[in-house]
Amino acid sequence: MHVTSEQAQKALEGALKKAAETRTRMCIAVVDSGGTLKAFHRMDDAWVGSIDIAIKKARTAVYFGMPSGEIGELSQPGKPLYGIEHSNDGLITFPGGVPIVDDDGIMSGAIGVSGSTVDNDDKVARAGAETIGVCDLPEHPWRT
Amino acid sequence: MHVTSEQAQKALEGALKKAAETRTRMCIAVVDSGGTLKAFHRMDDAWVGSIDIAIKKARTAVYFGMPSGEIGELSQPGKPLYGIEHSNDGLITFPGGVPIVDDDGIMSGAIGVSGSTVDNDDKVARAGAETIGVCDLPEHPWRT
Amino acid sequence: MHVTSEQAQKALEGALKKAAETRTRMCIAVVDSGGTLKAFHRMDDAWVGSIDIAIKKARTAVYFGMPSGEIGELSQPGKPLYGIEHSNDGLITFPGGVPIVDDDGIMSGAIGVSGSTVDNDDKVARAGAETIGVCDLPEHPWRT
Amino acid sequence: MHVTSEQAQKALEGALKKAAETRTRMCIAVVDSGGTLKAFHRMDDAWVGSIDIAIKKARTAVYFGMPSGEIGELSQPGKPLYGIEHSNDGLITFPGGVPIVDDDGIMSGAIGVSGSTVDNDDKVARAGAETIGVCDLPEHPWRT
Repeated sequence: MHVTSEQAQKALEGALKKAAETRTRMCIAVVDSGGTLKAFHRMDDAWVGSIDIAIKKARTAVYFGMPSGEIGELSQPGKPLYGIEHSNDGLITFPGGVPIVDDDGIMSGAIGVSGSTVDNDDKVARAGAETIGVCDLPEHPWRT
Repeated sequence: MHVTSEQAQKALEGALKKAAETRTRMCIAVVDSGGTLKAFHRMDDAWVGSIDIAIKKARTAVYFGMPSGEIGELSQPGKPLYGIEHSNDGLITFPGGVPIVDDDGIMSGAIGVSGSTVDNDDKVARAGAETIGVCDLPEHPWRT
Repeated sequence: MHVTSEQAQKALEGALKKAAETRTRMCIAVVDSGGTLKAFHRMDDAWVGSIDIAIKKARTAVYFGMPSGEIGELSQPGKPLYGIEHSNDGLITFPGGVPIVDDDGIMSGAIGVSGSTVDNDDKVARAGAETIGVCDLPEHPWRT
Repeated sequence: MHVTSEQAQKALEGALKKAAETRTRMCIAVVDSGGTLKAFHRMDDAWVGSIDIAIKKARTAVYFGMPSGEIGELSQPGKPLYGIEHSNDGLITFPGGVPIVDDDGIMSGAIGVSGSTVDNDDKVARAGAETIGVCDLPEHPWRT
């Protein structure tokens, strides 16, 4: 199941609202459960370099069914997934990408945000995801 | 000058409205005057392969300040620009990408649409561009 | 606003002059505020591998509105932006890329230098940027 | 033997002068005899899409020791080199790229120009190459 056009729009709006509240300038990407782009918005004066990062954070979250930052903990030097960023045409493994999961525990996509501190990015991404459902996935294997 | 967040949203909506009228399922991309992504929307059931085509059509239009289809006429076998598609990480040179030009003749970006026949793609792209201004550029060198 | 042809040439010359003073062989790239190439020069006997590094340093600086080396401090193992180099077709996050900012605080592009120690690279880049204005940006959101 | 820093600058200036005479807005690239970038300049208001094309034209000319347009005649459908554009990360095989050859018949690099009609591009490229020497190579195997 994939995030719908309407849900993606709602997620973008939820994220944009939180970005306004936190006075940040964000790039916001929504991808479906296959990791392909569904919707995207770059706020005025957002970093140009954040376009690709927002999309890659969303992909990272949906590719492995967890917030991008959790992958990042496992990809530090000496950790089990060290270097995973080299796969899939580049992953971004710091916070700001979260799965979009509905109340039945189905992951329909992910949202990725870039443009401020990783804490703000993560907060804005979660605000977007929560317009659709919960952020946390049940234990793997989850359904998509 | 770059297309603003608000204008990009308006262009998306104009294109989505025309897509609904023509009963087509489109991917719609808006890029700024440097060719970087500003806004994107994939309608439900739109071809997955159209995501990249919509973005590349928009880039093609803004990179050379003309509708993507005009480049395509010049890039046929035996024509002056044969093979230009191999530049810029891939151009798409059939119709569906048009510059966004305001009433002062300034090109602030472009819109690219993919998902139906090239005629429909072009029609939907123009409907999006026209929410901001005219589609045709004055003679080069135009201003951005 | 983008760095002009004349300013880019001045920045190159400023950097080349400093390179001669420091007896280094540099690759020097100037990009506009969208990160696309405006001017480039490779001095005789400069490292071939520095061509791409100079361009990527300039892009990194303009993509996030700060010297490339500042990103590098945040992208070390365990730091918030660990792995950011995997975005945007490759970032270079050690010193040698600096934004070009005019006296009104507008960032019109960036300059990236590679070919010697990072200290020398940074010094030569700053000499280039200073031919146009100051190097430091006001707080984000800055204008471009 | 490679085009020197000084020669590359001279070639750029020769091309820029011709561009001014023909009232065109060009991207101009000089590569050495290995095809790596030596110098580049984008005139104000030149097409953003021409950056990559200028560089690829120069590479195409030096990779095969002939003007880019000659490759293009051989790469048409049904001709011996059909599809050669898919090699070397993308070739551009219409006119505007010419080898830089000195009076001893040694090819030290190439110049590629993009931004107007292919006739103008070719004319401006030749004006740049001629600041260094002749444009035509002796028969292969030539020396580099």
